[in-house]
Amino acid sequence: MAVPYLPEYEQEETVMPPATPHHLREHGLEPANSPFAGRIGGNQDFVLDRSDPKNLAELDRVPDAAPCMNAQEIFDLRGFLSPDLWKFAMLEFVASMLNTFISAWVTTHPYAPMTASTAASGVYGTVTFFSPTFGGLTNLLLTPLLIYTFSPSSGGHINPLITLATFFARIISFPRAVLYILGQTLGGALAGFALHAAFGDRNITVGGCYIDTTQVPVTSGLVIEFFACLIIVWLCFGVALDPRQAKVFGPAVGPWLVGVVVGVITWGTSFTRVGYIGASVNPARCFGAYVASEFPGYHWIHWVGPLAASVAHGFVYFVDPLWKDPRAKS
Amino acid sequence: MAVPYLPEYEQEETVMPPATPHHLREHGLEPANSPFAGRIGGNQDFVLDRSDPKNLAELDRVPDAAPCMNAQEIFDLRGFLSPDLWKFAMLEFVASMLNTFISAWVTTHPYAPMTASTAASGVYGTVTFFSPTFGGLTNLLLTPLLIYTFSPSSGGHINPLITLATFFARIISFPRAVLYILGQTLGGALAGFALHAAFGDRNITVGGCYIDTTQVPVTSGLVIEFFACLIIVWLCFGVALDPRQAKVFGPAVGPWLVGVVVGVITWGTSFTRVGYIGASVNPARCFGAYVASEFPGYHWIHWVGPLAASVAHGFVYFVDPLWKDPRAKS
Amino acid sequence: MAVPYLPEYEQEETVMPPATPHHLREHGLEPANSPFAGRIGGNQDFVLDRSDPKNLAELDRVPDAAPCMNAQEIFDLRGFLSPDLWKFAMLEFVASMLNTFISAWVTTHPYAPMTASTAASGVYGTVTFFSPTFGGLTNLLLTPLLIYTFSPSSGGHINPLITLATFFARIISFPRAVLYILGQTLGGALAGFALHAAFGDRNITVGGCYIDTTQVPVTSGLVIEFFACLIIVWLCFGVALDPRQAKVFGPAVGPWLVGVVVGVITWGTSFTRVGYIGASVNPARCFGAYVASEFPGYHWIHWVGPLAASVAHGFVYFVDPLWKDPRAKS
Amino acid sequence: MAVPYLPEYEQEETVMPPATPHHLREHGLEPANSPFAGRIGGNQDFVLDRSDPKNLAELDRVPDAAPCMNAQEIFDLRGFLSPDLWKFAMLEFVASMLNTFISAWVTTHPYAPMTASTAASGVYGTVTFFSPTFGGLTNLLLTPLLIYTFSPSSGGHINPLITLATFFARIISFPRAVLYILGQTLGGALAGFALHAAFGDRNITVGGCYIDTTQVPVTSGLVIEFFACLIIVWLCFGVALDPRQAKVFGPAVGPWLVGVVVGVITWGTSFTRVGYIGASVNPARCFGAYVASEFPGYHWIHWVGPLAASVAHGFVYFVDPLWKDPRAKS
Repeated sequence: MAVPYLPEYEQEETVMPPATPHHLREHGLEPANSPFAGRIGGNQDFVLDRSDPKNLAELDRVPDAAPCMNAQEIFDLRGFLSPDLWKFAMLEFVASMLNTFISAWVTTHPYAPMTASTAASGVYGTVTFFSPTFGGLTNLLLTPLLIYTFSPSSGGHINPLITLATFFARIISFPRAVLYILGQTLGGALAGFALHAAFGDRNITVGGCYIDTTQVPVTSGLVIEFFACLIIVWLCFGVALDPRQAKVFGPAVGPWLVGVVVGVITWGTSFTRVGYIGASVNPARCFGAYVASEFPGYHWIHWVGPLAASVAHGFVYFVDPLWKDPRAKS
Repeated sequence: MAVPYLPEYEQEETVMPPATPHHLREHGLEPANSPFAGRIGGNQDFVLDRSDPKNLAELDRVPDAAPCMNAQEIFDLRGFLSPDLWKFAMLEFVASMLNTFISAWVTTHPYAPMTASTAASGVYGTVTFFSPTFGGLTNLLLTPLLIYTFSPSSGGHINPLITLATFFARIISFPRAVLYILGQTLGGALAGFALHAAFGDRNITVGGCYIDTTQVPVTSGLVIEFFACLIIVWLCFGVALDPRQAKVFGPAVGPWLVGVVVGVITWGTSFTRVGYIGASVNPARCFGAYVASEFPGYHWIHWVGPLAASVAHGFVYFVDPLWKDPRAKS
Repeated sequence: MAVPYLPEYEQEETVMPPATPHHLREHGLEPANSPFAGRIGGNQDFVLDRSDPKNLAELDRVPDAAPCMNAQEIFDLRGFLSPDLWKFAMLEFVASMLNTFISAWVTTHPYAPMTASTAASGVYGTVTFFSPTFGGLTNLLLTPLLIYTFSPSSGGHINPLITLATFFARIISFPRAVLYILGQTLGGALAGFALHAAFGDRNITVGGCYIDTTQVPVTSGLVIEFFACLIIVWLCFGVALDPRQAKVFGPAVGPWLVGVVVGVITWGTSFTRVGYIGASVNPARCFGAYVASEFPGYHWIHWVGPLAASVAHGFVYFVDPLWKDPRAKS
Repeated sequence: MAVPYLPEYEQEETVMPPATPHHLREHGLEPANSPFAGRIGGNQDFVLDRSDPKNLAELDRVPDAAPCMNAQEIFDLRGFLSPDLWKFAMLEFVASMLNTFISAWVTTHPYAPMTASTAASGVYGTVTFFSPTFGGLTNLLLTPLLIYTFSPSSGGHINPLITLATFFARIISFPRAVLYILGQTLGGALAGFALHAAFGDRNITVGGCYIDTTQVPVTSGLVIEFFACLIIVWLCFGVALDPRQAKVFGPAVGPWLVGVVVGVITWGTSFTRVGYIGASVNPARCFGAYVASEFPGYHWIHWVGPLAASVAHGFVYFVDPLWKDPRAKS
């Protein structure tokens, strides 16, 4: 019967690897799949069973191949020696570089002072509105494709905000979080050098990375950054990491919903207040944008906002977990 | 039969929990699912069987885990002692806070007197049209994602209008209704404080929360508010809570239809009459907006409108119920 | 958004040819299908099993009918004598000609000096923005249809960038790469002659193929070209060639995602810097455009950019392969 | 959002007629289906098996009920005596009349001299751009519906270009081609009389059917016409007639892809050169438009362009056939 269903959900007796086509597995060719609880769009369906003794060796090597890690597993520093983690961090470096370059380029403008529009169409007829509109659309369309491309290997975080949020939700290990954030930040920086070479002028503003501090106090920027990050983290978990949604849409649709969240938030925060052109929600991207121009004094809010949002989300996640922990005393 | 159906509807022998992947349930990992008749997008498919003795203990604890409650079950005040209800109310607090902040921010403008446009493009070239257009689009896109994220736990009401409507349709209990509305209103208020910190000016109007009472009498506002709420309640029940639709679209599509309803109503009521910028359809959101600016004398219509619409809908729902009550004498 | 279930994935006992309808195969009529690892949208599902002795003769004839070639297979020069490869190269010639003509025509303008817009709407109200917007939309809509049409025979590369990238990813052979690129370039050239006949003026600019070198140094163009190509290569592999995605969307959806990538990148690189009207990401297309106008000194960046991006991608592909090589020593 | 389930792909044991629902066939009710290789969107799935003796009588009567005809079958002039072919030609007459009227009406304008726009928004703010944009969108949306409606009977050609192309691809017989083209042209003519009655002025231009020969030489028009037709023929075969795609999207999606092709090409060729308002790609439609206005000297290009494109496509189709001919010596 021909139903619109996602073939990987033909349930196999064995849990792993669900994405390998049957006829390929039979004859030796096998796509390389990595079990990982923090895979965006995977809805924690690509995980190992912690109670199955067969998986103990793999889980010792990759503690975040299953959710519900304890502190000892999270901070198992042997992860820093794992070639796989370094390889994945390199992929995050590439993904962040590609994402930063194109999403910065499409919203880069020569610096110009911002004033309120006095036309009847208000801000809606100005660059202040058009630029984030098309930047948000670019985010909406490219984010899912970046997630598709990188999620089977590294999980498709691309953005330190996601890595921080999964870390505080205890579904990725400490070494993985550190290596990913390093990779993402370096990728952003390299994209920044390229952006400078491409634009040829340091006197620029990049969408989401500029506050006119004569008109907008930095604390206002921090509040918006915090809320924007909190919404993105919460909705990304809700649509792309919540195992209860694995059957509702699955890995083909989840990344598009993440794209909608990121696109709408980056767009929707950008044109309300004169002098504030939108939330960053990606510290590595603004880091890169500042490499291409210059570092302002308020860059810290692009890191503190995501960090605070991740901690706040992690706290609720701890109180109302998505999984019933099989090792919990109950 | 040709239905676009979703794999979780592969019927299991057991009703609960339908969303748990088979291979996970086998080995102890189990997503935390809460049976609840008032789940938006669930189309009352995530409910317990009231006639199954196995469910009696659970139903005694969570009376609205099944529809067709009697008065004693609805007003079972032990619900106020349930940690789960408090946890869910906290999630509604978070959801309402996130929703209020972003949907208010995107439609916030400095106060300006409203006059009819005299340009050839009429209202369609003015802020009065553009602002609710993009605000409605934001609602349309974000509402489904908020529902996806919160519905598996709290049911994804987010808005006191929905909680009131489900209460008068007798599918949620009194304690749950009270705690949810408290949570949602507090969430709106906190978002209002954040909105004030972010915008830095109290002399603002927020889309859906402003009436120029020199041009529009408050009773006109109440009429529009009542009808807007009634349409939203009726259509939300029709697409996201009617069990007869569970197989027609289910939890992946239903929330998008809710998003369309909310987006179109908030947009479509907003630019017709000079001095009226749209129906609220979410009292907690305007409550928050007024925390960020100041409380006007007409704020009561944002509560009375939803209340009246919920009662009207509940009456028809009582006369023409969606379920055949298994305990009714027939 | 949701994914069509692709009937050919009803697994057959036999691996090849998966796209032949059952009822046709029974009675002698059989569509002509060519196993080929580099088929865009095929996600390497239309490949042969290298370890099955039945396939040895076919693999000797068509070494890139399976992934994981070694150097000897890649450089097996007997491919130059294969009538099939010449036939496929002719199809690539046709595809490139059709693609170049229409995508160049839709973005062709008489030459005009470019200056920064001083209106409130900035670049967003000018030809500089509109032309690539509708050109990008054309790419987004036509690219998938071109891939559908040509992928069952030649793999649907159409563009030397894709052929270079698949070559450096070791999934197509050297003779195929050479013949395809020759065919694509000749197709572009013929489209260029037609473009000249159709437009009747050599003093034109074609979207993606013009740099005002008085305003933009060529190295800036090379940096953008390199990044644009790198994003396209990486995402095309991720959505249309990665075997781990074969079950996630498959050959009906994959080409649309490729269309989105190409459309967004060609659009998104085009209006940021005054004097630069977008990345080429298809050397054969600009080659054709210059046949229709005249060859500028910077045409080399349209070849070096793709080449460098293909090598960079191929390196990471080598370090983190998509397949576990069945012949690798492990 | 959700994916249309395609009922005819429930594989039946019997080849013909694949579209008859089982429960109807059981009790005598059976939809009237005509096997025909040239059915648009059918991907040659609705064909007879030439090697099955049961089908010989039907194939003698309808030689193009299966692909791979030889010359004797193609030119079997007894087809002119077939009531079915006359009936189908009448349906093509109706389809062409409907299509011509609405697609001409939506792009009809009073004649006005064309000059290049000097505004910053260039051609994108003028009728020259808007008219084909909405005309192309109309084609994109209506073409699939016309194909759905007429394809089960006549194959849904509607347009002489498609009939010519299928003839030179040897999947329709000579009598059918002649009768269809006659029907389509008469339908266009009748629509032209209606268009004249509806518009009330002969001094009009219809989108796709006007060249200002003082600005654009007719040979330029012929080159664009040829390329536009070639793209449409090639992509229509690729998405709607190629049997290798039958399982990839099938008769519900194929016609939409045809609509995209026709819409994008008629739109994309229309605003680049001042004085040329787009390719015709349907000689019967321009024939009708000229009945409503007057016949220009260059009308021949609307017939020679499609003819040349069909011959060119037919040649490659012959060299690289889609089917392995069961009667070929191999």
